[in-house]
Amino acid sequence: MDGSVSTWLASDYNKENIQLCIKKIKDEFGQQFSSSKSILEQHTHTMTIHESELPDGVVFAETKEDVQKVVKICNEFKCPIIPFGVGSSFEGHVNAPYGGISIDMNNMNKILNVFQEDLLVVVQPGVTREQLNTHLRDTGLFFPIDPGANASIGGMTATRASGTNAVRYGTMKDNVIALEVVTPDGQIIKTANKARKSSAGYDLTRLMVGSEGTLGITTEITLKLYGIPEVIAGGRVSFPSVKDATDAVIMTVQTGIPVARIEFLDIAQVKAVNSYSKTNLPEAPLLLLEFHGSEASVKEQSELFGEIASDFGGNDFEWTSNNEDRNKLWKARHDAYWSCKAVRPEAEIYSTDVCVPISKLSDCITETIEDMEQNQLIGPIVSHAGDGNFHVALLIDKKSEIELKKLDSFLIRISERAIRMDGTCTGEHGVGQGKRKYMLIELGGAVDIMKKVKNAFDPNKIMNPGKLFL
Amino acid sequence: MDGSVSTWLASDYNKENIQLCIKKIKDEFGQQFSSSKSILEQHTHTMTIHESELPDGVVFAETKEDVQKVVKICNEFKCPIIPFGVGSSFEGHVNAPYGGISIDMNNMNKILNVFQEDLLVVVQPGVTREQLNTHLRDTGLFFPIDPGANASIGGMTATRASGTNAVRYGTMKDNVIALEVVTPDGQIIKTANKARKSSAGYDLTRLMVGSEGTLGITTEITLKLYGIPEVIAGGRVSFPSVKDATDAVIMTVQTGIPVARIEFLDIAQVKAVNSYSKTNLPEAPLLLLEFHGSEASVKEQSELFGEIASDFGGNDFEWTSNNEDRNKLWKARHDAYWSCKAVRPEAEIYSTDVCVPISKLSDCITETIEDMEQNQLIGPIVSHAGDGNFHVALLIDKKSEIELKKLDSFLIRISERAIRMDGTCTGEHGVGQGKRKYMLIELGGAVDIMKKVKNAFDPNKIMNPGKLFL
Repeated sequence: MDGSVSTWLASDYNKENIQLCIKKIKDEFGQQFSSSKSILEQHTHTMTIHESELPDGVVFAETKEDVQKVVKICNEFKCPIIPFGVGSSFEGHVNAPYGGISIDMNNMNKILNVFQEDLLVVVQPGVTREQLNTHLRDTGLFFPIDPGANASIGGMTATRASGTNAVRYGTMKDNVIALEVVTPDGQIIKTANKARKSSAGYDLTRLMVGSEGTLGITTEITLKLYGIPEVIAGGRVSFPSVKDATDAVIMTVQTGIPVARIEFLDIAQVKAVNSYSKTNLPEAPLLLLEFHGSEASVKEQSELFGEIASDFGGNDFEWTSNNEDRNKLWKARHDAYWSCKAVRPEAEIYSTDVCVPISKLSDCITETIEDMEQNQLIGPIVSHAGDGNFHVALLIDKKSEIELKKLDSFLIRISERAIRMDGTCTGEHGVGQGKRKYMLIELGGAVDIMKKVKNAFDPNKIMNPGKLFL
Repeated sequence: MDGSVSTWLASDYNKENIQLCIKKIKDEFGQQFSSSKSILEQHTHTMTIHESELPDGVVFAETKEDVQKVVKICNEFKCPIIPFGVGSSFEGHVNAPYGGISIDMNNMNKILNVFQEDLLVVVQPGVTREQLNTHLRDTGLFFPIDPGANASIGGMTATRASGTNAVRYGTMKDNVIALEVVTPDGQIIKTANKARKSSAGYDLTRLMVGSEGTLGITTEITLKLYGIPEVIAGGRVSFPSVKDATDAVIMTVQTGIPVARIEFLDIAQVKAVNSYSKTNLPEAPLLLLEFHGSEASVKEQSELFGEIASDFGGNDFEWTSNNEDRNKLWKARHDAYWSCKAVRPEAEIYSTDVCVPISKLSDCITETIEDMEQNQLIGPIVSHAGDGNFHVALLIDKKSEIELKKLDSFLIRISERAIRMDGTCTGEHGVGQGKRKYMLIELGGAVDIMKKVKNAFDPNKIMNPGKLFL
């Protein structure tokens, strides 16, 4: 099979057919359809460098049968479909480069079933992370994945999201048990039953997780839940250097301390927070920690970590299991985004992420900071250090051609740097439009295999075209 | 695409072509090739009800280039290839129903690289689990997945193996970071780099894990490692009923006690052990536990579990962090296999496994015990209870047609029972030949999607034909 078989071209889509398709969908869906400019724009608002590319229409799906109907019609007319959650992705996942239908999943926001004994919940894709945890509060259970934004569970599934506590609870790939999916030819399938493990055939669940809407549309998601920890403790400590901080992280993970979060902030981020939040944190690399467990267990974890921190020059380790004090210790992390904004109020934040083996994290962060210094870029860094994953929040004046060019070449360098260090160009944001060009550099011949899979699922190339690979 | 597109038929394979292929491989590989009857028989010895089906020849691969060469030749002649590890699978995975080449991976048994800081190791597929842990001992790290047999890492990857401590450390799907694979058309690809997480495209790693040699042959495997726990404690307690025991398990998991192993033995298994090992365990459902952590942590976990056990009528909970005493407590588990054998020395053991949501475990085990009683079958049960997974070791006289028939209908009933309870017909043994007929019942339309994936990878149907689906 030719490697380019699933590469989308404008000529793959016939504009007249798409218009016929839009008309049919409009007739079928009435009030659930819109093609007003403001609605189209809302559905391609991307928090990225990518310009919006509008679809031809938006359908607000209410049921899986709605999704099935849209998919069948679009497949008939070979019309692109772009699934839309809350639009919090960074890499242009919701853009419509070839037009077509944006399918808005927000009204499919029911929590269908909580299985307390099985620590499972079944949700529709439009349920948001905060909605789910609010709903679960009385059960003593929670869903841990927290990518920052109040993303939809469908979007988190599609991009294989993770976030601050992946170091303990894993990513979406580890926490999705089963999916119900509308395939590109309009069938409704389930990828698995509700056993916590299975060796019954290909792992379609994990093939769908992270497939960015290119293989089908998820209509039900079964997730793992966890008991809310008896005690949550927080900690904070500064280090003399990036390397000292990451060495402490490595030792923490090796020792098997089950940290729930272990976040790194570089000097630029600490300075930004000090300025924004009127704090007096030492202007040095900072680690913020969270420990989950019983009172005795979080005490043991904290003390053990304190010894490790001290071995690497982190001597002012503070920790607490008091909620209010914990929030104070963690204020630097909670204010990270807005403090970056305040560094350069006229600028936009362009967030990018890479992930490397943890032994390379210090080198990768250090080289990235030097890179920004050499190129007069401002980009505070926050890292999910236990995973080797870090984010740079680049502050860019969107109106400056020069800055946009500098940003572009920086994004190439940071991606190639991570790949050179045996890591990935995207730890948790996904590929979307922005990281497509690195896929071949990172994965070589595997990209051809991905295209074969895509082609097997979606020979008409209707599902979210123009994403994931070139 | 027609759903039957990847269903193998004898007519798919031309016997003359296969003979030409065998000749070419023999010429290429010389001493690394064999077609002696005893070698062929060794390579299809299956620990199952399935009769051996011999390949036409066996190649002993030494390098990835050997694997690539075999695959390219077989692809040219459309000749089946069956990857062979140590042959410890239960479901006929290594049989050659359409003849062809068995490719023996045992000489590819190098541990290529230990990355201590990254808690990763790269191995060849012929490395066995015990070999790996022996090699790692001095590093303070270990690889936790333990399916019982001293299986090869390649075989464990292919069948998505798990075992006793999956409740804490997950299954192979959770512990494989990246793979190098020879695809059915003879390319060598890597599925990922060595970052601990990635959202760069389709999760080919997890698509390969559990694909049972039907999508390609793994030539390198990158695995997660863990620090050897400071202290390992063991525990043992009997319960008045199956339900009391599984309720205690549910409560333990809900409470978030990070048990490393939580194994259930039914009365028949306890009786078998008492008889074989001259012990005096109460003839009642038994739980065996293992706790990993610091001295303080295992003490806390054990005491907490003791309270839970007591709430469900388990009043004689014993635990210890002394290694020798722990082995004594766990003797019932270690002797499980041989004690079954001794119940009926003239019989063979046919092991099967299913997995259900943990809330259904008690019902599923209880119905299965009743089923065996009604049908005069003997099958002690051991369960990885924290996962809802259990094994029945059926003692069958292979020479009795009546018993074989009874076994066959029992296997149908237990699989359908697990599926009816929203579980799976195979928690960790894989599908192979034995569980193919349940795939459609369990997963419906998803099986067609699997066939499409298979066809995209392997249009010539050379990789392990006759396995995974009908």
